[in-house]
Amino acid sequence: MLIEIRVDLKEEIEDPQGKVVEKALRNLGFPVKSVRFSKLIKIELDVKDEKEAIETGKQMCKVLLANPVIEKYTVKVIP
Amino acid sequence: MLIEIRVDLKEEIEDPQGKVVEKALRNLGFPVKSVRFSKLIKIELDVKDEKEAIETGKQMCKVLLANPVIEKYTVKVIP
Repeated sequence: MLIEIRVDLKEEIEDPQGKVVEKALRNLGFPVKSVRFSKLIKIELDVKDEKEAIETGKQMCKVLLANPVIEKYTVKVIP
Repeated sequence: MLIEIRVDLKEEIEDPQGKVVEKALRNLGFPVKSVRFSKLIKIELDVKDEKEAIETGKQMCKVLLANPVIEKYTVKVIP
């Protein structure tokens, strides 16, 4: 079963990578106001159903994939 | 106007970051078969309509945000 985990920085947290890219794009002449990066992690799991897939995804975020102090995450099953 | 650009590695390209995380998750006991990372870039643009937003997004991918040799990208307008 395939899941997709999206990890976003919390809104109040600065995104240094985004700031650098924002400046670079502006210097290239693009009409950019802000840039924020997120991670998308596609994981193939050996589980029996969607419920277990979502639960496993959340557990992996807690243990390894996301930093709860500065990030939030969503887990969804994809086709 | 807000756009979201998704940059994925082409399927035939190895994802070293994914491989490392895959091993780490397996060592932690998770039933993981594969892990692939993608980038999601949220950009606020000063443009007049959706068509211009999409065109600008594609242009930014070509010039800076994606490496066409190993990556593919999609651009969409978000609310």
